[in-house]
Amino acid sequence: VTVDSCTLGENRYGKSRIRMVRVRRGERHELWDLRVDVALSGDFLAAHRDGDNAAVLPTDTMKNTVYALANDEPSSDIERFGVILARHFLAQAHAASRAEIKLTERPWSRVESEGRPHRHTFTPGAGGTRVAWVAEQRGGKLEVESGIADLILLKTTDSAFVDFQRDRYTTLRDAPDRIFATSVNARWRYGAADGSDLDFSAVWRAIHAALGSTFAAHKSASVQHTLYAMGEAALAARPELASIHLALPNLHHFLVDLSPFGLDNRDQIYVATDEPHGLIEATLHRK
Amino acid sequence: VTVDSCTLGENRYGKSRIRMVRVRRGERHELWDLRVDVALSGDFLAAHRDGDNAAVLPTDTMKNTVYALANDEPSSDIERFGVILARHFLAQAHAASRAEIKLTERPWSRVESEGRPHRHTFTPGAGGTRVAWVAEQRGGKLEVESGIADLILLKTTDSAFVDFQRDRYTTLRDAPDRIFATSVNARWRYGAADGSDLDFSAVWRAIHAALGSTFAAHKSASVQHTLYAMGEAALAARPELASIHLALPNLHHFLVDLSPFGLDNRDQIYVATDEPHGLIEATLHRK
Amino acid sequence: VTVDSCTLGENRYGKSRIRMVRVRRGERHELWDLRVDVALSGDFLAAHRDGDNAAVLPTDTMKNTVYALANDEPSSDIERFGVILARHFLAQAHAASRAEIKLTERPWSRVESEGRPHRHTFTPGAGGTRVAWVAEQRGGKLEVESGIADLILLKTTDSAFVDFQRDRYTTLRDAPDRIFATSVNARWRYGAADGSDLDFSAVWRAIHAALGSTFAAHKSASVQHTLYAMGEAALAARPELASIHLALPNLHHFLVDLSPFGLDNRDQIYVATDEPHGLIEATLHRK
Amino acid sequence: VTVDSCTLGENRYGKSRIRMVRVRRGERHELWDLRVDVALSGDFLAAHRDGDNAAVLPTDTMKNTVYALANDEPSSDIERFGVILARHFLAQAHAASRAEIKLTERPWSRVESEGRPHRHTFTPGAGGTRVAWVAEQRGGKLEVESGIADLILLKTTDSAFVDFQRDRYTTLRDAPDRIFATSVNARWRYGAADGSDLDFSAVWRAIHAALGSTFAAHKSASVQHTLYAMGEAALAARPELASIHLALPNLHHFLVDLSPFGLDNRDQIYVATDEPHGLIEATLHRK
Repeated sequence: VTVDSCTLGENRYGKSRIRMVRVRRGERHELWDLRVDVALSGDFLAAHRDGDNAAVLPTDTMKNTVYALANDEPSSDIERFGVILARHFLAQAHAASRAEIKLTERPWSRVESEGRPHRHTFTPGAGGTRVAWVAEQRGGKLEVESGIADLILLKTTDSAFVDFQRDRYTTLRDAPDRIFATSVNARWRYGAADGSDLDFSAVWRAIHAALGSTFAAHKSASVQHTLYAMGEAALAARPELASIHLALPNLHHFLVDLSPFGLDNRDQIYVATDEPHGLIEATLHRK
Repeated sequence: VTVDSCTLGENRYGKSRIRMVRVRRGERHELWDLRVDVALSGDFLAAHRDGDNAAVLPTDTMKNTVYALANDEPSSDIERFGVILARHFLAQAHAASRAEIKLTERPWSRVESEGRPHRHTFTPGAGGTRVAWVAEQRGGKLEVESGIADLILLKTTDSAFVDFQRDRYTTLRDAPDRIFATSVNARWRYGAADGSDLDFSAVWRAIHAALGSTFAAHKSASVQHTLYAMGEAALAARPELASIHLALPNLHHFLVDLSPFGLDNRDQIYVATDEPHGLIEATLHRK
Repeated sequence: VTVDSCTLGENRYGKSRIRMVRVRRGERHELWDLRVDVALSGDFLAAHRDGDNAAVLPTDTMKNTVYALANDEPSSDIERFGVILARHFLAQAHAASRAEIKLTERPWSRVESEGRPHRHTFTPGAGGTRVAWVAEQRGGKLEVESGIADLILLKTTDSAFVDFQRDRYTTLRDAPDRIFATSVNARWRYGAADGSDLDFSAVWRAIHAALGSTFAAHKSASVQHTLYAMGEAALAARPELASIHLALPNLHHFLVDLSPFGLDNRDQIYVATDEPHGLIEATLHRK
Repeated sequence: VTVDSCTLGENRYGKSRIRMVRVRRGERHELWDLRVDVALSGDFLAAHRDGDNAAVLPTDTMKNTVYALANDEPSSDIERFGVILARHFLAQAHAASRAEIKLTERPWSRVESEGRPHRHTFTPGAGGTRVAWVAEQRGGKLEVESGIADLILLKTTDSAFVDFQRDRYTTLRDAPDRIFATSVNARWRYGAADGSDLDFSAVWRAIHAALGSTFAAHKSASVQHTLYAMGEAALAARPELASIHLALPNLHHFLVDLSPFGLDNRDQIYVATDEPHGLIEATLHRK
């Protein structure tokens, strides 16, 4: 191996899929179920080129750290915990110049028992998963972003797709009324650089509600059209948001042709498909 | 190929993963989202041995049939639709002596919008999936079974596992208080052979509620112990059930040892794992 | 809980997805990568009804046992290891009357390096997964079955499906030449009850080869037709087999209609689909 | 909704998971099995804000186009087909300023039959999947990148991890000899801007071989160390490469502690785990 043949560009390393479940045992038990991904980047040339691990904090240590710091963390905001982790790793790993933490919170709701939510028994909640991305640059700024993963929504009407561009390979016909099914992935940035005094949970619930109710109410001319309305509604719902990125697959439902059987399919019977699917993405910025 | 070297034993063929979505467009739209698996068995020796397809109704036709019959089906009970399909296929496919239909209903709930459930917009419901198995034997009896797939439940206390058998390879210690997490798969049989005048949906909701509330309330000495209590509660909840089979994985949550870090883990920090997992299965019969 | 309301029927418990990797470090390293599922059934009423675990050998102990016995096991036949495990568990767990072991071996082949197979570096092998099921009944017989999971095969010609039964809902046309793609799941029984002196690995390789070459050579009139020929060939290939069960999905590839674009699709362009798919299953017995 | 409240930032739309299988029916049939993802970006504000689809070429048309152009495409290089698709879509969709195509080729090898590769029967090939990313900017340059997805490799020795940084939360001990298992994802750029006269298939095979043989031969001091050696070897293997990005998870295999059972685990019995796992990523540039 000649040392001079190549240069090391961007690099990072860390631990992925750290699963941490915390139980706070008060009158009602509180459950906090996370998947955490940690990554550090910085000056790790010696590790790569020479096999010198002196500057490499093991990924196993990252895992231990997540458990140890979760034990003492008072909040249940994944954004706050991410900030604590990022700062800790920058403090510990001297070679690192940047720490990135992704946190995914599994949604749990309480089981109904005897007419009320049970104090220590849970079942998965519906409505998508809460996600946060935290990154801190040494000597630089803190970046906090939040999101919703896999919020599945379907409407059976008020969705059209007509008057689109046609070319030689276009066979699609105008659809004045179709099923619109999607699985929303949203990710937003905050106006304040560090977002340290935000009520992240309240923001998340407001954006979640805005996305769902806008999807429901919108007279959709296309996935793009509804995506834009959803993003606009999210920005309107919470002034803390500076921008929002939305990715909406179009999970096609095709009307089945029942005419060979002498039947009239009055917009009633559809076949749902997963592939291929449309995929529409955009970022909206507050003006 | 010598005809005499082997004999054809049990055989069946059909179409799997037929996805059918039906929309009833009243004042409130009603959504019915199914996956249907169809299988026929009978005298299909000529198809297998000789490549003679005269008695083979194509699996593509099974798919078409699901769409056509769903168009006319008045109910939204998967059990009833399964019976209609099974009878239809036995009537059409003369070589078939048995038709088996499995139906899986994707749970949808209405999106909240302006404080109330929206009339045509849906999001996945929580709490497991409704399943039915229908089989009809030509000239014989109809078998209808119902079930719940993947009802995930977790309790943070009232679960122990102590005083078990120990041998040379046992390192597990008594656990007087542990997390109990599982994903219930339930399947029950009805006392009446054909179940034709049952309110299947009401039964399903009652069994679903009984399983969840029993899991919550039970002082568990083991997965087996809670499984039995859940089965007993299900049989008690609805007299229509003759028996119930339950399969409960034990989705282990291990307390993390924080003592190397000088920390006290007061039953607070756990690591969740998927593999390996315990798996406990049993059938309970009404006396 | 009233003791008299129900009776406990069939039940079993055990550990699933135990992952065990063994390395034998000779001149060439030998890798053995298993997933083991253990289940015991027997008289476990007290555990279920009363929460009395005295007869319950923990599933954690089952996991430990797999590791401990693999350490001493001289062979690399999953069937033999399964027999050892089944006997061990029946000996240890006095309440158990039946032990069932499923073993799945991940296929690894050696990486090519400098023109020859490397002595300690591996990459996954192609051609399906080796599986065994071993069950022992206390005081009864040993059952050993072997199989191949997910052997994916595709032929681009010599496959037809014509002259099938038609009914009102049939729109499928005769296909004199089509793509036939499948993922074979095979499971066979041995003529000798305990199979203790068989060369299981040699049998597996022979059945694997027979299934693949028969699929390739067969002039297929249907999935059933080819399944039968494959089963017949497997039984002919090794006299040790008493029967074989085959399950073949029909992973449809549909010819794309290019005529709207003025193009002639000369059996060239297909769309592959996963759902719905046909599913054909049968057992062949040696005469 | 006021039109002025927000601005549309980056956006793109397209069709994902288009599955296309092409059969060339010569003396030996040639199979080409692709998954294609198409995305266009450009001036689509009217579609988003106003629901005006005049500039939106439907994603359904993208799907048709993939089939139509594959029918006429003489080569079997996914990179070349990607270039043709990108150029076509820029020509057709006047509002688009950028077309991005991702192509994933499912690896198939021929079934052995009668001692030689069969002329029309296939089974999946081992050794990772071939991938290409093609992007064309209107009036700008063409970007072609190639890669290997999910090349799984495991070595049973010549892998260490010692003398790393330790902190309060470090419990990991030096591992002078461990199993190293990974699933390589590689992606490389070419020195020539458009790469139009490269033999992409020859490059791919050379990089594939260099990665595997370097992984095998390397005396690894860490995942980073081996990643760097693999990247260096890839750049050395083919001068066409300008840079290569490698992502290597560390799929941990932990030595099982058999001492509680009085057994000596001589680097023989391991438990394989999927989560958590290390994840090491870096880009190497040719000097």
